[in-house]
Amino acid sequence: MFLSWPLIAGGVALAAVVVLVFRVLRKPEGDEEMVRISRSIRAGAGAFLRREYITVGIILVFLALGMSFTSLGWRTAVSFVLGAVVSGAAGLVGMMIATRANARTTEAAKSGTKPALSVAVSGGAVMGLSVVGLSLLGLTGVLLLFAPELFVPGEVSNDLLVREAGIINGFAMGASLMALFARAGGGIFTKGADMAADLVGKVEANIPEDDPRNPAVIADNVGDNVGDVAGLGADLLESYVESIIASMALAAGLALSATDRSLMLLPLLIASAGVIASILGIGFTKFFGRKNPRLALSGGTYVSAVLVIAATFFIVRSVIPAEGFVGEGGRSFTQLGPFWASLAGILSGVLIALTSEYYTSSDFRPVKKLAEASQTNAAVTVTEGLAVGMVSIVLPIMILASTVIFSNHICGMFGVALAAVGMLSTSGMVITVDSYGPIADNAGGIAQMSNQDPKVRRITDHLDAVGNTTAAIGKGFAIGSAALAALGLLTAYIAAVGGIDDISLSDPKLLAGFLVGGMLPFFFSSTLFRAVVYSANRIIFEVRRQFRELPGLREGLEGVVPDSESCVDISTRAALWGMLVPGLMALIAPVLIGFLVGPLALAGLLIGSIVTGLMLGVFTANSGGAMDNAKKYIEEGHFGGKGSIAHKASIVGDTVGDPLKDTVGPSINILIKLMAVISLVIAPLLTS
Amino acid sequence: MFLSWPLIAGGVALAAVVVLVFRVLRKPEGDEEMVRISRSIRAGAGAFLRREYITVGIILVFLALGMSFTSLGWRTAVSFVLGAVVSGAAGLVGMMIATRANARTTEAAKSGTKPALSVAVSGGAVMGLSVVGLSLLGLTGVLLLFAPELFVPGEVSNDLLVREAGIINGFAMGASLMALFARAGGGIFTKGADMAADLVGKVEANIPEDDPRNPAVIADNVGDNVGDVAGLGADLLESYVESIIASMALAAGLALSATDRSLMLLPLLIASAGVIASILGIGFTKFFGRKNPRLALSGGTYVSAVLVIAATFFIVRSVIPAEGFVGEGGRSFTQLGPFWASLAGILSGVLIALTSEYYTSSDFRPVKKLAEASQTNAAVTVTEGLAVGMVSIVLPIMILASTVIFSNHICGMFGVALAAVGMLSTSGMVITVDSYGPIADNAGGIAQMSNQDPKVRRITDHLDAVGNTTAAIGKGFAIGSAALAALGLLTAYIAAVGGIDDISLSDPKLLAGFLVGGMLPFFFSSTLFRAVVYSANRIIFEVRRQFRELPGLREGLEGVVPDSESCVDISTRAALWGMLVPGLMALIAPVLIGFLVGPLALAGLLIGSIVTGLMLGVFTANSGGAMDNAKKYIEEGHFGGKGSIAHKASIVGDTVGDPLKDTVGPSINILIKLMAVISLVIAPLLTS
Repeated sequence: MFLSWPLIAGGVALAAVVVLVFRVLRKPEGDEEMVRISRSIRAGAGAFLRREYITVGIILVFLALGMSFTSLGWRTAVSFVLGAVVSGAAGLVGMMIATRANARTTEAAKSGTKPALSVAVSGGAVMGLSVVGLSLLGLTGVLLLFAPELFVPGEVSNDLLVREAGIINGFAMGASLMALFARAGGGIFTKGADMAADLVGKVEANIPEDDPRNPAVIADNVGDNVGDVAGLGADLLESYVESIIASMALAAGLALSATDRSLMLLPLLIASAGVIASILGIGFTKFFGRKNPRLALSGGTYVSAVLVIAATFFIVRSVIPAEGFVGEGGRSFTQLGPFWASLAGILSGVLIALTSEYYTSSDFRPVKKLAEASQTNAAVTVTEGLAVGMVSIVLPIMILASTVIFSNHICGMFGVALAAVGMLSTSGMVITVDSYGPIADNAGGIAQMSNQDPKVRRITDHLDAVGNTTAAIGKGFAIGSAALAALGLLTAYIAAVGGIDDISLSDPKLLAGFLVGGMLPFFFSSTLFRAVVYSANRIIFEVRRQFRELPGLREGLEGVVPDSESCVDISTRAALWGMLVPGLMALIAPVLIGFLVGPLALAGLLIGSIVTGLMLGVFTANSGGAMDNAKKYIEEGHFGGKGSIAHKASIVGDTVGDPLKDTVGPSINILIKLMAVISLVIAPLLTS
Repeated sequence: MFLSWPLIAGGVALAAVVVLVFRVLRKPEGDEEMVRISRSIRAGAGAFLRREYITVGIILVFLALGMSFTSLGWRTAVSFVLGAVVSGAAGLVGMMIATRANARTTEAAKSGTKPALSVAVSGGAVMGLSVVGLSLLGLTGVLLLFAPELFVPGEVSNDLLVREAGIINGFAMGASLMALFARAGGGIFTKGADMAADLVGKVEANIPEDDPRNPAVIADNVGDNVGDVAGLGADLLESYVESIIASMALAAGLALSATDRSLMLLPLLIASAGVIASILGIGFTKFFGRKNPRLALSGGTYVSAVLVIAATFFIVRSVIPAEGFVGEGGRSFTQLGPFWASLAGILSGVLIALTSEYYTSSDFRPVKKLAEASQTNAAVTVTEGLAVGMVSIVLPIMILASTVIFSNHICGMFGVALAAVGMLSTSGMVITVDSYGPIADNAGGIAQMSNQDPKVRRITDHLDAVGNTTAAIGKGFAIGSAALAALGLLTAYIAAVGGIDDISLSDPKLLAGFLVGGMLPFFFSSTLFRAVVYSANRIIFEVRRQFRELPGLREGLEGVVPDSESCVDISTRAALWGMLVPGLMALIAPVLIGFLVGPLALAGLLIGSIVTGLMLGVFTANSGGAMDNAKKYIEEGHFGGKGSIAHKASIVGDTVGDPLKDTVGPSINILIKLMAVISLVIAPLLTS
């Protein structure tokens, strides 16, 4: 009976996707120039996705074959492939619509803010609801396929449940692999193109942002889609799936009784409620978006949070026996324990998002002070920007540490995993808001490139500015939820591998694991930085070549169009090649350490990577966000405005911040989750 | 009998200090202008030290009184005060001579490279040998005072030894508190003044570096002394003392037999041998410094390393019974186990230093590529510079992780602590080389300010350039040894607090401890960054004021001298005020977590802070070093040389790198050690 809920919720989400797709496609796409630009962006995004999927596909086949030949078996391999396919499918649908919603948003802006917001939100919601809908259906499908015992009342050994949970972990690993390419590859793509477009356009050729003469501009706009729509979607999809799977795996070890699997199914039920709550939140946003788009977006987020809290309360009350249950280590927990744990997760998600907003929005002191500091020199901007990012870690960590202690106190390590499920239950809404950002950004770019009326551009610029704040908030949310999901996976790994509990903290293998694990996010980040710089330099050479060899391009002569495709092509190649080293590292490091040094060292490696990864993730995301918005704040006319010393300094800061916040920061989420899920998958091999 | 060795070695070191002091002071100080400048620097350094010591003194008294009233008792309090006094005394002597050796080095450069090198090395050796001499004498004195049982053959309970070891920990904590102020305070002082001098001098007023017209130049030169002489000395003194104490504390738990304390005294013997080896190494450097100062300095380092390795072999052979001994957990170790462990430490110190050299010297690829990347834009320089710093972590961590595993395998956790003792045994030599750097730097500044012959300036510039490389190497060594010392302290803490072994890695308090501990180095760094920016801005305003209000200053009119004292004063205040938040954080965090959340959470906090602190330390030190030397490489004429686009970009990179490498990086060493030693000191209170 419980089984029907995730299927229904997933079905509803996909039905909503179909409705939204038609509503978006029905809208007019605008004049010829807008259509042309939108098509170029779409073609570029499609070209990237195609090559990305081929690359992932090849790796997927090899890994799946490898798995089949170990004792993990073909079931885990199939589950693994399905996880990647689900994530890829969500990304494909989301991108197809996001790249069609951009020009339509510009066109709708001619009739006002509300219609434009509505189109952009619909476009974002396609991504958001595809992610949650496809994840729920895919996950339930895999469960039905490989763990049917879960759904049939009757006596089943916990051992069987644990083994079946092991097969399902493959699904999470597939989603994780896809997310690695989508997020890190997309991040390299988007920032290589962005840096190049800025440096060669604004600085060298002295033409404004999003100018149609700049051959790198289309690649920059493609990048927004592949990085922030497909990348973020795949990232949250992974956390979403992993938080559910980790809590199910932990629950498998502590089933209420031999015949009752409510604890194991609880995460699926909360997630199902979250899907419905997200759909209602999206409706709220579209309905109340007339005056203040920002309030409408955050209003929708709060509405879905409140709804899912209420729903979770009733679900827990009806699923968990009134006398409570016995959890890990024989500790007894109250009936409402799981509710409080998910509530803690939901609240800490909101709080972490608020701290991100505080440190990265120009409404508050840190960004204002950063803009002020830019009056001295670019070096001061960067130094102060790094300082803002570093101090912005304090509150999120305090919130996460409290959540871990509280949810464990109230419900054991299962509670920590449930907190992650709670936090991620409204992913449908969160991804909608986040994907809205790049659509609005693209809409602004199209308005600029196609020379729309200033009134239209004011509206798209306003929607874009709102998107910048939501992007920073979304990043805080993504890293917070990734950390909780990774902690859940870590605990599941420790439980699965067995025999590494009751250890000494001064065990040298553990200490060495901490050190090596702590180092990996830095190494990973450095390779991503370099890939971005490499990609940017290649594009800069190409743009310079075009300005040199295409007469009339720089002057904007009628009929002379830049060759945008070549820049998209360079970005794509650089992104996929740039993935090679960090991707291999993420795949190989846990396997190597696990088999050569042992499961305890691997546990240390995971902890070390979660600790430094979480810090680096929040630091880079907020540092970059603050430097970005300090530049925008100065451009609004503060401290001398455009063209002032402060503005020049802030441009350097923004350019440094770009790969920090859009390549390195978000990719680290994936790194720590991917290594944790690989460890969980290979756990059975490590113990045998 | 063993007791006499550290006393003899300490006495020899101090005798060598006296000889070197007279040899330095005997040299002529040069013309009137040189004397005036050197006096200004000396006066500024003295003013800073005075206020720093008063501040530390007040905190010291309060903390010592606090300790006396707890069950830690007055003995620990006295030991604590003595530790701080020894560190302060070493800093005072070292600074007094370093600030007298600078002009004398310039004067000696008139007769050639070798005499100049000899004066600078003698000046540095005063600091180096004061540190090791005073530490050994102070530590042995405290042992005699509070742990006389150690030295008298006869039956003593291990409990008593452990309790006495607890009292001695106070000595390390005193040294650590002093080091915090010397290193972090000195770091804020030096980089605030440096950034201001660069920004207002080179960028705004367009006058060259070290120009006597710039009022901030004296403060910049003072900063080199307080940051790199006194700061580095106090940092290594702390690691030196802590590695000895941690290994003695670990050995106390595993005395060979009730009457044999050889294991406990072994660290003191190795350290004593290291002092003699360092003196011989210094002699080698002074003797062979004719042609190539860099080879002479590294030659001396290798000579002392080889000597101490040989000595350790014989010491271990004569002290440890041929049949080996039984260590922690009843594991038996061979006679030579302790030798191999110290050898691993010495070798890993050398290897880590070599990786620092590779990533920060312009002789190798990373800095060359960084200089090349500067041709695009300052943002690219900074991004690539951060990437170099991040990737430079990989090898040191691998080396440290292998050292931990190997030395533990060969000799238990005692072996890990012994590796730290081995690495630090040649501290006398290492500090000499490091303190040589700022003396040579000052000598160059004085040559520039007093308009010496270009031939003289070429010599001082060359000596300065050598000092820049040794500084980067010294930082790598300092952070590597700090990490090993902190791991030793951590193990001693876990042993001392008891009852937190056999724990679960997924314990929520432990996980929360990891997270909070991992966050602290970032928070600490951000406050230091801000203190530097604040200090720099204040000095910039002051310099602008002087250029405005002192007619003829900017033009270099005869008889118009800038008011350098005011800049020194601003730097001093900013440094000591800037210490408030990070200092309090370092002191309070472990106490708070230990008492409120418990000893297990505190262990997690220490591990988290060591992991992220180590990464951040290496990253910031090498990032800053690489950006510094990329600028110098461009200034040598590559990629357009001085005044080119690449040069301007590299100046921004260098300015961002300055606080990274000279304020944040080195201070993090102290943070992780201070928190570990505080935890060790309060361990008895946590268990009662």
